[in-house]
Amino acid sequence: METALFTANNVWMMICTALVFFMHLGFSFLEIGLTRQKNTVNILFKNFFVITIGILLYSLGGFNLMYPGFDEGSMGILKFAGFGIGAPDGGMTPGYADGGYTWWTDFLFQAVFAATAATIVSGAVAERVKLGGFMLFTILYVGLVYPIIGSWKWGGGFLDGWGFYDFAGSTLVHSVGGWAALIVIYFLGSRIGKFNSDGSPNAIPGSNIPLSAAGVLILWLGWFGFNGGSVLSADPELTSLALVTTCLAASAGGVSSALMSNLLYKNFDLTMFMNGVLGGLVGITAGADQMGPTSAILIGAIAGVILVFGISLLDKLKLDDPVGAIPVHLICGIWGTLAVGIFGEMASVEQFINQLIGVGIIGAFSCITAIIIVFIVKATVGLRVSEEEELKGLDLSEHSMDAYADFSLSNK
Amino acid sequence: METALFTANNVWMMICTALVFFMHLGFSFLEIGLTRQKNTVNILFKNFFVITIGILLYSLGGFNLMYPGFDEGSMGILKFAGFGIGAPDGGMTPGYADGGYTWWTDFLFQAVFAATAATIVSGAVAERVKLGGFMLFTILYVGLVYPIIGSWKWGGGFLDGWGFYDFAGSTLVHSVGGWAALIVIYFLGSRIGKFNSDGSPNAIPGSNIPLSAAGVLILWLGWFGFNGGSVLSADPELTSLALVTTCLAASAGGVSSALMSNLLYKNFDLTMFMNGVLGGLVGITAGADQMGPTSAILIGAIAGVILVFGISLLDKLKLDDPVGAIPVHLICGIWGTLAVGIFGEMASVEQFINQLIGVGIIGAFSCITAIIIVFIVKATVGLRVSEEEELKGLDLSEHSMDAYADFSLSNK
Amino acid sequence: METALFTANNVWMMICTALVFFMHLGFSFLEIGLTRQKNTVNILFKNFFVITIGILLYSLGGFNLMYPGFDEGSMGILKFAGFGIGAPDGGMTPGYADGGYTWWTDFLFQAVFAATAATIVSGAVAERVKLGGFMLFTILYVGLVYPIIGSWKWGGGFLDGWGFYDFAGSTLVHSVGGWAALIVIYFLGSRIGKFNSDGSPNAIPGSNIPLSAAGVLILWLGWFGFNGGSVLSADPELTSLALVTTCLAASAGGVSSALMSNLLYKNFDLTMFMNGVLGGLVGITAGADQMGPTSAILIGAIAGVILVFGISLLDKLKLDDPVGAIPVHLICGIWGTLAVGIFGEMASVEQFINQLIGVGIIGAFSCITAIIIVFIVKATVGLRVSEEEELKGLDLSEHSMDAYADFSLSNK
Repeated sequence: METALFTANNVWMMICTALVFFMHLGFSFLEIGLTRQKNTVNILFKNFFVITIGILLYSLGGFNLMYPGFDEGSMGILKFAGFGIGAPDGGMTPGYADGGYTWWTDFLFQAVFAATAATIVSGAVAERVKLGGFMLFTILYVGLVYPIIGSWKWGGGFLDGWGFYDFAGSTLVHSVGGWAALIVIYFLGSRIGKFNSDGSPNAIPGSNIPLSAAGVLILWLGWFGFNGGSVLSADPELTSLALVTTCLAASAGGVSSALMSNLLYKNFDLTMFMNGVLGGLVGITAGADQMGPTSAILIGAIAGVILVFGISLLDKLKLDDPVGAIPVHLICGIWGTLAVGIFGEMASVEQFINQLIGVGIIGAFSCITAIIIVFIVKATVGLRVSEEEELKGLDLSEHSMDAYADFSLSNK
Repeated sequence: METALFTANNVWMMICTALVFFMHLGFSFLEIGLTRQKNTVNILFKNFFVITIGILLYSLGGFNLMYPGFDEGSMGILKFAGFGIGAPDGGMTPGYADGGYTWWTDFLFQAVFAATAATIVSGAVAERVKLGGFMLFTILYVGLVYPIIGSWKWGGGFLDGWGFYDFAGSTLVHSVGGWAALIVIYFLGSRIGKFNSDGSPNAIPGSNIPLSAAGVLILWLGWFGFNGGSVLSADPELTSLALVTTCLAASAGGVSSALMSNLLYKNFDLTMFMNGVLGGLVGITAGADQMGPTSAILIGAIAGVILVFGISLLDKLKLDDPVGAIPVHLICGIWGTLAVGIFGEMASVEQFINQLIGVGIIGAFSCITAIIIVFIVKATVGLRVSEEEELKGLDLSEHSMDAYADFSLSNK
Repeated sequence: METALFTANNVWMMICTALVFFMHLGFSFLEIGLTRQKNTVNILFKNFFVITIGILLYSLGGFNLMYPGFDEGSMGILKFAGFGIGAPDGGMTPGYADGGYTWWTDFLFQAVFAATAATIVSGAVAERVKLGGFMLFTILYVGLVYPIIGSWKWGGGFLDGWGFYDFAGSTLVHSVGGWAALIVIYFLGSRIGKFNSDGSPNAIPGSNIPLSAAGVLILWLGWFGFNGGSVLSADPELTSLALVTTCLAASAGGVSSALMSNLLYKNFDLTMFMNGVLGGLVGITAGADQMGPTSAILIGAIAGVILVFGISLLDKLKLDDPVGAIPVHLICGIWGTLAVGIFGEMASVEQFINQLIGVGIIGAFSCITAIIIVFIVKATVGLRVSEEEELKGLDLSEHSMDAYADFSLSNK
């Protein structure tokens, strides 16, 4: 491959890396916007922890664990001894990874991806998780579980051999995060005041809707890199197709969620609109390179409808997910993965079964490991703050800090 | 063309698409920052509606309507039957569009552009427009009027033949949105309390200046894609020239607005500074590829001065434009379009007349169609909320939601 | 060089320019978030001034002053007569600057860099500097001091000849801004209420921590362009290495600051975490193209520790730096510059001495010029607002405007 094409490919992949990195601002804004101001600093601290420790852990072991076959020059113990030691021969030349990027870019793109899975958990457990417990969970889940699962498909492992397809991670990223979120909030319990004694839910309104809306638009922008970068080169046809299907599914998801919630609840619900956009994005992620425009719109629209019922289902199960992380990332992630077998170039009964198998195996492994980690956390640092701390707000109890100090109603 | 250059071109165009998409966060922030918090959710809902429905409508018909000549393989009825059906032969090869991008990228870049025109209207009508009325207006204006006008110039229609020049849309995007804004606020009337019985205006201060300032900087960033992408390839000289003229005009517009408003009103007015930046950006848009640095600074500086007087003029005409959309997008859009005939490579009396003709024809068509749509809206869903709803705020009356729930003065 | 590679290089450099431009939103958010709401509009106004006047001044003289050797076709007086006049032959061809970018891109990338130095000062002097005084300081410092210093190294001057190395500006940008900040706050004095009569400091909490956290993430994103663009081409190996070292140092800096402040003060301090990320970024900037992953982590981690002590040191010296600009930009900037002589490819005693010499000469020149400018400011427009204005807040006293008008406690 000539240098010019290699350079153009690598430029695209570096930009996609930057965009996926920027999604962490999107997640932060979404989460603090949909929760109460008394827990804002805590959520931001968790997000800073996730992105920094996520990158560091991925360099210390995750990258080599996830892509064992890539660094053939460093087999054995070295491949677990950290990024930078086992650099493959020619990792900076067009001979590496079909000339799609350099080895450095490869690492960084995958590293910012890895941090995403833990961020999904962060939103679901907000407002009552103990900071130390969340940090320990993150270290184990992002440091070990995520790269092990990733190795099964993207690292060329057995699920790849079995024909499971997941282009950019409806399952490998979003469901992996979503299953963990489900397990943790099950053991964590709901926030004080979320459910009445008869089991009926109370709405706990978000404190900063503008920031949550900004978060969704930033996430959508980030998805240009998330899906566009998953082509792993700047191939003009595939990258631009991925962007088109991504944007059509996001649009259809938002509109269908807004319509469906308006039909059911007679209200123009902005939160549903926003989560519908995210549901469409998660839904298209598994097959963004496989769909035509019409299929993309259908996948997104169905995701948007599923999402509305998913949010309602969680309430019925008395599961408290303050930001809707589980409907968006887990339920729409499963939908999107199965949709690869229903729509687009790969549609077939066989492929649908392959997708089901992948969803099932990864779901089971995610849940089991999440349960084990939850028990480790409970046995050591603890999972949930005290009732007093929760009522006071985690900002004051864990950080001695107020997110909006001059707006003096902030401690209510 | 070799693959490498095609790939580099397409990478640039995809990034520009992402940047123009991101402008929708800029518009959202600008609008909610300059209005009252009781209408924040409503404005965000409108913006989410505009970007999602804009992309969907553009895929359903707008793209084919605007560029009828591009899909030669799909003449007749097919060209109105939706994007994705009439893909041209070779649409993913360097043979398409001189190798500047793929057909997918072409669609998406134009789709995110299209949504911009409706967003301009959104800001001007804020705080009293009925949500259903705005949605109907948007569907008709973005779905039909914008692509029809676009086809006259960018689609290779009669205005293109007549020598009208509009590089990136001072007229085709900004004035088209601005004229509609003017018509709608004329029929809509001013917000309660904006004008006293003697006709003198009251300032209604914005509720979140930091977000509006962020909106302006995000819009400026987006303009890198708006103008840089309008080269329709990554041609090094033209794209980088467009970025330079864009940034110089924005800077000059901001400084001249701040200076002029300080001379007139003895105050360092941040809102004027911010709108001056936007005025400079709109002003340079028609000729960003035609100007040298000095001309760009002059065009921007004049736009900044015009803007200050434009804002004052609207007050005298008792037109209520909460965010200054009409001075920025309409008045500076006209100025920028005419400036192509005054400055730069195309300066000549003949060109100036060509520009005037384009401005006039597009202005007349925009106004007439906007009036027709306003009457359709009035006859069906209605254009304005009730006095009671307006006083209560649209967030509670249309969305049963509070933008800043924990900041308990929010319902004042 | 073929057109395709030139195009890909220029695309990368234009994107990096956009990212560095976007850092100005990051600085704005960081500063308004960490200060009181009564000074918010004032800080935003200063930031709009810095970016617009910075670009204009750089076009009027800064660019030619900083890179005198580049425009060989325009020697003598012309090289000071403004950008656009002395365009070099072939400035838009691959023959210019080794084909890394066009002359237009070169200008704009350097222009958005230049504005950064003044922004650093803006944060440190917040909440009590007189607007006119800050504007005059900015004009002289960005218009003259920054480009003169830049010419000594990046413009091919004597420090370049002496072997001083500063890849992306730990010293040439960050310390230059940091020294000026130190000088100005020394003459300006601390905010009313910052220090008690016994010299002990009071914490003045920031008013909007979410925006300051967003600022840090936006700055980190911008650093992809700041360091990635300093390669001055899209060379795949060097650009991707720079991104990897940048992100690892940022991560390590954040984690080490959070750990160190937790050890010292028994608190999970988000502000320390955030500033640690910034310290890591500034620290790696001088050698981002010279380090392996392990060195990058070490440099960042040490920067994070230094930062915690630096913040404490300023308090002991009774210097009031509301946003921590001096520990981040000056102290970590010096550390990063010296680290080039300790770690990585250039590590040697000789190089360490070269680095020390560069730090010393530039520090001395920055301080002397800053002192001279402070005296000019004091003798003309004045440096500090009155006590009454400071207590009232600069938003009302300088701008007659409220940043959050509907949140009625805003004038406290």
